[in-house]
Amino acid sequence: MRALDKNSAKPLYEQLYENIRDDILSGKMSEGEKLPSKRALAEQQQISVVTVENAYSQLIAEGYVRAAERSGYYVQYSGGAVETQYAELTRGEFPNSEKEEPSGEGAFEPSAGDFPFSVWTRLMRSVILEKGTALLQPVRSGGAEELRRAISGYLYRARGFYQPPERIITGAGTEYLYNLLIQLLGRDKVYGIEDPGYEKLPKIYELNGVRFEYIPLDGSGMSADALYEKRVDAAHISPAHHYPTGIVMPISRRREIMRWAEGCGRYVIEDDYDSELRWSGKPVPTMFGSDATGRVIYMNTFSQTIAPSVRISYMCLSEELYGLWREKLGFYACSVPAFEQYTLARFISEGYFERHINRTKKRFRRVRELVLQLISRYPGSVISEENAGLHFTVEAVESAPQMIADCTKCGIKITPLSQYYSDKKGAEGLFVVNYGGAVEQRISEILGA
Amino acid sequence: MRALDKNSAKPLYEQLYENIRDDILSGKMSEGEKLPSKRALAEQQQISVVTVENAYSQLIAEGYVRAAERSGYYVQYSGGAVETQYAELTRGEFPNSEKEEPSGEGAFEPSAGDFPFSVWTRLMRSVILEKGTALLQPVRSGGAEELRRAISGYLYRARGFYQPPERIITGAGTEYLYNLLIQLLGRDKVYGIEDPGYEKLPKIYELNGVRFEYIPLDGSGMSADALYEKRVDAAHISPAHHYPTGIVMPISRRREIMRWAEGCGRYVIEDDYDSELRWSGKPVPTMFGSDATGRVIYMNTFSQTIAPSVRISYMCLSEELYGLWREKLGFYACSVPAFEQYTLARFISEGYFERHINRTKKRFRRVRELVLQLISRYPGSVISEENAGLHFTVEAVESAPQMIADCTKCGIKITPLSQYYSDKKGAEGLFVVNYGGAVEQRISEILGA
Repeated sequence: MRALDKNSAKPLYEQLYENIRDDILSGKMSEGEKLPSKRALAEQQQISVVTVENAYSQLIAEGYVRAAERSGYYVQYSGGAVETQYAELTRGEFPNSEKEEPSGEGAFEPSAGDFPFSVWTRLMRSVILEKGTALLQPVRSGGAEELRRAISGYLYRARGFYQPPERIITGAGTEYLYNLLIQLLGRDKVYGIEDPGYEKLPKIYELNGVRFEYIPLDGSGMSADALYEKRVDAAHISPAHHYPTGIVMPISRRREIMRWAEGCGRYVIEDDYDSELRWSGKPVPTMFGSDATGRVIYMNTFSQTIAPSVRISYMCLSEELYGLWREKLGFYACSVPAFEQYTLARFISEGYFERHINRTKKRFRRVRELVLQLISRYPGSVISEENAGLHFTVEAVESAPQMIADCTKCGIKITPLSQYYSDKKGAEGLFVVNYGGAVEQRISEILGA
Repeated sequence: MRALDKNSAKPLYEQLYENIRDDILSGKMSEGEKLPSKRALAEQQQISVVTVENAYSQLIAEGYVRAAERSGYYVQYSGGAVETQYAELTRGEFPNSEKEEPSGEGAFEPSAGDFPFSVWTRLMRSVILEKGTALLQPVRSGGAEELRRAISGYLYRARGFYQPPERIITGAGTEYLYNLLIQLLGRDKVYGIEDPGYEKLPKIYELNGVRFEYIPLDGSGMSADALYEKRVDAAHISPAHHYPTGIVMPISRRREIMRWAEGCGRYVIEDDYDSELRWSGKPVPTMFGSDATGRVIYMNTFSQTIAPSVRISYMCLSEELYGLWREKLGFYACSVPAFEQYTLARFISEGYFERHINRTKKRFRRVRELVLQLISRYPGSVISEENAGLHFTVEAVESAPQMIADCTKCGIKITPLSQYYSDKKGAEGLFVVNYGGAVEQRISEILGA
């Protein structure tokens, strides 16, 4: 125990109390250990018994010590030693080798300026207030009714199709739903994925141990011929805006794919990940919306339009598949916390989501103009852009090094297109330009220089 | 348009504004439609032009109408018709056939009185305030550092083993982690599950298309002999307290299982779902804590101790498996929203979690006494209980109907043990008593009657 300082302004009983408390907290005195009697401690420290009494009372009141009748005083706090030992064990750095979650693949990255964070937190607060302990109650397996109704309304307004709310299944991110979808459609199916394409997809199919085929794309995207040839059962495509090439699948090709899908046991997984961002004209209609066969599954996510830390994605199912989902997967608990679901439901149904999308579009229309200006300055560059999304491809063999250096400074990501091919080869001289994280100011500086 | 009421206290311009606005909102007037000129409307309604002017200004200010120079006024809100059409489409009831998430399987059900909801919401508010827009940023693939550190500290204090925080992987619920674990350990493994056991497990292994074997239990749980015999690679067990029989695996049996696990490519998945609830003596130590081979995976969840709507579970990995996880599964985005993670981290590190567990234990100690008293009243009933968890088994052939009727009234769930067997047979006259949702008052009434 530290010595008492009789010249200190702090009363002696308080010093004594603090000394004993610190010994307990640091583990020097451990659970069950007997404290000296009041008289013994008073003599030892050359202080009055009343001073010791006051210190002990405080320790008892705060739960560090208990008094046993006719026996004495005992430490009753066991955390001390444990905390100290633990602190010694865990002094290491948190390893940096673990990947941060990649943000905004192909779609826009969250920027403090874009997202109405104060609205979001206000809604969070009012959800807490209004829902109260109902927040602790479980929600339905497919998600909270409020959220599914809100998404249904949004799809009707923004994507032009009516989906009954109950057939909208929410999940903790698109990757989670990809896994679920394999369990829904079956492991005996052959899945067809776009080549080039989103790099996480083949990993997920492989981890699930299901057969998948890389389907090469032509200028219109995936072709039905290739699906027949490779004996695919479920085609995983992004017809509104392919990642990373930016191809918009023309209507003729969509019809072809739909005719293919009419065959027994075939499905189309329509990944509509950035359809919100269309720079001119009307949004490209969904295949799901015009599907009469019930073979299309529609998927989208809020992780990209709101924030990557908000893990909410959803899929729209036909009546038949919804029945199958209930039967096979309805036992799963919903993977999205109730609180997030209610907050997002209000964010959508009170109109904030669509206003947020509109503001974001306004900003990125400006950014896109600047990026196109910048890229077209490099000698020999040929841009392929389809008026949509936050990425496009450019051919730039000679001027590539300068372009990459400049773009990196501006927060524009340049990746060789070959990286998105299954064999990491081909497409020489072609690059994917992703301007989701672009900084306008810097582009303007380079353009003005 | 509704007629104006000249005797109303509401100014005429305001009535006019509301009438037009409602027509736009309901879709009676649609996007692009021209409004009457101010003069024409004034004449038609027998009001002054200034009144019309005031109404139009308000509509323009709120964005419902735009003024085109030298041309007139036009509706510029397109939502109206869409909202009306949507409302007509979606008038249906939300189907009731979808299962609500089952709450508190085998562990305690959330009760408003138990959980410190006001503390939780206070922490939520302070996380919003302190983190600000950092809440929108992605967290590491395995979860936020703060939460993993908090869990590591908790495990050291409560479960007596030190796990480096980075090797604690969080996920959106245990079911999600079961799926992930299959991807981690491999699809070529044969999984061994307890029979009787937790009914969701075989469903998940089956949906994943991996081989699994039902391993019959004896009075000590799963035996190593059975694991050898059925050529199991990964044994999925709950040694601290088996669900639903309540068996606590003795140390001799644990050693046997650990010797089995030393064989090439073998693993033990230790499900510690309700180890917090031990009614006397020290908590049963974990197998993970004393494992030197790196073959044990430890799993636990907060969905049962906090609330089923909070979807956070975690698993502890050996160094080797953590390396494998980073390599194979590190590309997955963390499935738990950042906000929930930060809130839970504070709840644990500020000591609220352990206080909550202690309060819960205190209540259930009382409830358990009452339930044991109640059940032992039925003629011929033989109770098997191991001083742990919120369920036990009882043999009650003759008195079963009365016992079931009384218990149901008290919120105590009685299920035939046979339901938990793979073949739904056997164990005649044996019942699982689950008192997680028991109402003390009602039990006391029956006991007093």
